[in-house]
Amino acid sequence: MAGLQDETPTTPGQALPRPAGSGQKLDYIFHPRSVAVVGASRPQSGGPATNFVIALQKAGCPAIYPVNPKYDELDGIKCYPNLQTIEGPVDYVISSVPASVASQLVEDCIAKGVKTIHFFTAGFSETGDEERTRTESQMVARAQEAGIRILGPNCMGLYVPRSGLSFTPGFPRKPGSVALVSQSGGNASEAVFTAAVRGIRFSKVISYGNGADINESDLLEYLAQDPETEIIAAYIEGIRSGRRFLPTLRAAAAAKPVLVLKGGRTETGARAAYSHTASLAGSIEIFDALCRQASAIRVNSVEELVDLIVAFRFLALSESGRWLPRGPRVAVVGVGGGSSVYAADEIDATGLQCPALPESAQTQMSQLVPIAGTSIRNPVDATNISDPASLGQILRIVGQADNIDLIFYHLNVGWGWNISRRTPSNTDPNERLDLMLREMLKAREAIGKPIVLTLRPPLDVGGMERTIAFREMCWKAEIPIYSATPQGATAIARLLRWRKAQEEPR
Amino acid sequence: MAGLQDETPTTPGQALPRPAGSGQKLDYIFHPRSVAVVGASRPQSGGPATNFVIALQKAGCPAIYPVNPKYDELDGIKCYPNLQTIEGPVDYVISSVPASVASQLVEDCIAKGVKTIHFFTAGFSETGDEERTRTESQMVARAQEAGIRILGPNCMGLYVPRSGLSFTPGFPRKPGSVALVSQSGGNASEAVFTAAVRGIRFSKVISYGNGADINESDLLEYLAQDPETEIIAAYIEGIRSGRRFLPTLRAAAAAKPVLVLKGGRTETGARAAYSHTASLAGSIEIFDALCRQASAIRVNSVEELVDLIVAFRFLALSESGRWLPRGPRVAVVGVGGGSSVYAADEIDATGLQCPALPESAQTQMSQLVPIAGTSIRNPVDATNISDPASLGQILRIVGQADNIDLIFYHLNVGWGWNISRRTPSNTDPNERLDLMLREMLKAREAIGKPIVLTLRPPLDVGGMERTIAFREMCWKAEIPIYSATPQGATAIARLLRWRKAQEEPR
Repeated sequence: MAGLQDETPTTPGQALPRPAGSGQKLDYIFHPRSVAVVGASRPQSGGPATNFVIALQKAGCPAIYPVNPKYDELDGIKCYPNLQTIEGPVDYVISSVPASVASQLVEDCIAKGVKTIHFFTAGFSETGDEERTRTESQMVARAQEAGIRILGPNCMGLYVPRSGLSFTPGFPRKPGSVALVSQSGGNASEAVFTAAVRGIRFSKVISYGNGADINESDLLEYLAQDPETEIIAAYIEGIRSGRRFLPTLRAAAAAKPVLVLKGGRTETGARAAYSHTASLAGSIEIFDALCRQASAIRVNSVEELVDLIVAFRFLALSESGRWLPRGPRVAVVGVGGGSSVYAADEIDATGLQCPALPESAQTQMSQLVPIAGTSIRNPVDATNISDPASLGQILRIVGQADNIDLIFYHLNVGWGWNISRRTPSNTDPNERLDLMLREMLKAREAIGKPIVLTLRPPLDVGGMERTIAFREMCWKAEIPIYSATPQGATAIARLLRWRKAQEEPR
Repeated sequence: MAGLQDETPTTPGQALPRPAGSGQKLDYIFHPRSVAVVGASRPQSGGPATNFVIALQKAGCPAIYPVNPKYDELDGIKCYPNLQTIEGPVDYVISSVPASVASQLVEDCIAKGVKTIHFFTAGFSETGDEERTRTESQMVARAQEAGIRILGPNCMGLYVPRSGLSFTPGFPRKPGSVALVSQSGGNASEAVFTAAVRGIRFSKVISYGNGADINESDLLEYLAQDPETEIIAAYIEGIRSGRRFLPTLRAAAAAKPVLVLKGGRTETGARAAYSHTASLAGSIEIFDALCRQASAIRVNSVEELVDLIVAFRFLALSESGRWLPRGPRVAVVGVGGGSSVYAADEIDATGLQCPALPESAQTQMSQLVPIAGTSIRNPVDATNISDPASLGQILRIVGQADNIDLIFYHLNVGWGWNISRRTPSNTDPNERLDLMLREMLKAREAIGKPIVLTLRPPLDVGGMERTIAFREMCWKAEIPIYSATPQGATAIARLLRWRKAQEEPR
């Protein structure tokens, strides 16, 4: 993700802990003055903790202390034999030591005055082993008694771009307005990476694993009033906080959109969830009922989660506030007759509508679109539209129709697409894409209705390069991007249903 | 699709028409001695027909005659002012002339002794215009009277790699065993391109547009007994051949697997289908009933179509004949705890099963998989498996379990994946992927059960390069590749249901 790394970094947040308010009591864990990585190792040794040091360095963490008695230096930084030998204060410890010495690490942290321990270390309650489960409980109890909060165990910890915290080297340095709490570090990474290329940036990502101390309710409560967070996404395998969960979820969803991916919704998944994070997955029917009561939106996959984040960020919560569709009536414009047909099928199936355009719009369009081989009723087949300006005119005609609330524009720059086929061969593909986008934006401005882009996944390296370039141009202009029409239509249909429910008196 | 072009081409088929048998009566249209592209033009002029000449050249067509009085030469080949001036015989004409002169072209073709005309030319019945609809009928009647068959109008025509025919420059030159009939050229291209990167090659692809002469039943009847075709896929917007369709579909599906994508399954899609290819889409319930009666499988998108083609080609019809799963019981092995959880959820939801592994398998595995942070019951979280040999051992243990019929292995080489993280840093990523694949293949051989690969779409250029390399290694070994677990599970569940229905007495 080299491109993401090139972004101008923001200055890491202030070093001093913020004042603790009622729901803000967790805030200090996101703003450590320094981070020690205990059990850090070299790449060659195969130790996974190495990535933490590199990730923190790349994220701009103000003070990183690798700790491992085997080394004097790691990744170009001084390495300490133990916590006690570190000169300055250590607010935050990432533990990569074996589970067998985790309890000793808690004692060392108490002695050093550490505020938070993130246990990447696994091998506790998720193994189903009684002894290991007991160790986890004792460790948490001891830490709590000493005023230390624990993240995990068995998790990836924090990605907080404003504070220079990260657990994976390729994450973007720019912060954004989406928070993600996730029991799984892998699902969190997948969400961050796949959302990043569609323009989503994060305020705080918290991988919390077994959730033995800090759990989903603590995090939801905190994020509900975090001023840096506008959208809350969550991956939850099992609820840790029993009766607290529903009121917390309800309060969070009343403050901000809350999107929840539930892991372990089937019997098989539930067994897997228990082995993964010692979660009792519970019945999906009950979980669904909780979400409905709280007005949270439940999804089935990381893709669906990201699709909804994109819809909320660029339509419901766009910077201009202008792009929330006023209704479900879609005009489909794009390249390909057959793909238009099944785009229309798919939109219909999601609950959005794809009404025939008014006669007047069809008449206007027939001036621009050659009658041969193109449809102009809706969907509009723009295969034969040869120049960006005509595309702009089509979008205006379509968007000005009274019975249209938003436009889906579908195209494919990733394969088999000779972008200069219909233009002089000296036109640079990216230049042409730039021209197209400018026409799209002028049209959007003129019609005051949102445009949603469907951009198929590329199949070769050239297609990937064009896709990356075009995607970035588009999301910078706050255009939501989907990989296929049904995904976009599904997400937007759910956004509109959520919005309608919000407007109804309770 | 540069990589696809590099494949060793096959020699184009014999020039002479084959003897016409009962269902083989269409065979000659797929083996023209020469092709004339009437209305061919230069790229700069923006004329779409140019692609036909280049596509034919790249496909190795034995004799191409561009026809356009404006040019002496096109794409390096002699260009003729009209059909009559071509010295040799012309078996096949691609028409790119305007609709207004199409009838005249039919006369020219009769005079020249042409056998087949493919009308790329559009602007006929699909416009809904009475006059244009009449022209189409008259043109077809005149051609039929003179013994000429018409493909289209309003379509892309033929891609037949064995004969050097193609309509898009990037299609693979190698032939395969899958045939595709499609009213839409765009959907056909999408299917060819997206299937090609997963190792699918085609015997014949026929884009037939309005189907005014050659229609879906003619093509199904032909393909049912085409010895080069093992799997038939179709994109149909409307049935042209009334009562003939059901018996033809039934006969085809009795001979070979038949997979059908129906365009225009909703009211909106039906309107679009009418504008696209003048198709009366009819009710999807009736279409579904036809498919059920005929034992054809209906799908909802090009992706689903390709997902099923991949399942049939590499599991039901693999070269060794060994990889059809004996039942629906899946072991999931892969990287990531959270992704394992929701892979298990997704498999459960498709009707496949993901049973807990026997105690003995779990015991064997616990020797290999560190207990910390990994699940070994099924799904098996292989995140901490550091070397290819251990992966191979895991696959053997899992695959030897009595209650497992196939293995889903999921991984991600396309983003955020530091492939050398756990191996000495001088290991080349592709070399490591190659080692992994060899271990997978040894395991598959030993257990005699199929392995299915889930490989997430890449997000950056490096990821694309790794993905392309790994995908190719895998499909060459007849491993079916899916972009996500539910897609793979859905396709395989349908394959198994189809297989079961085949075995039941009728």
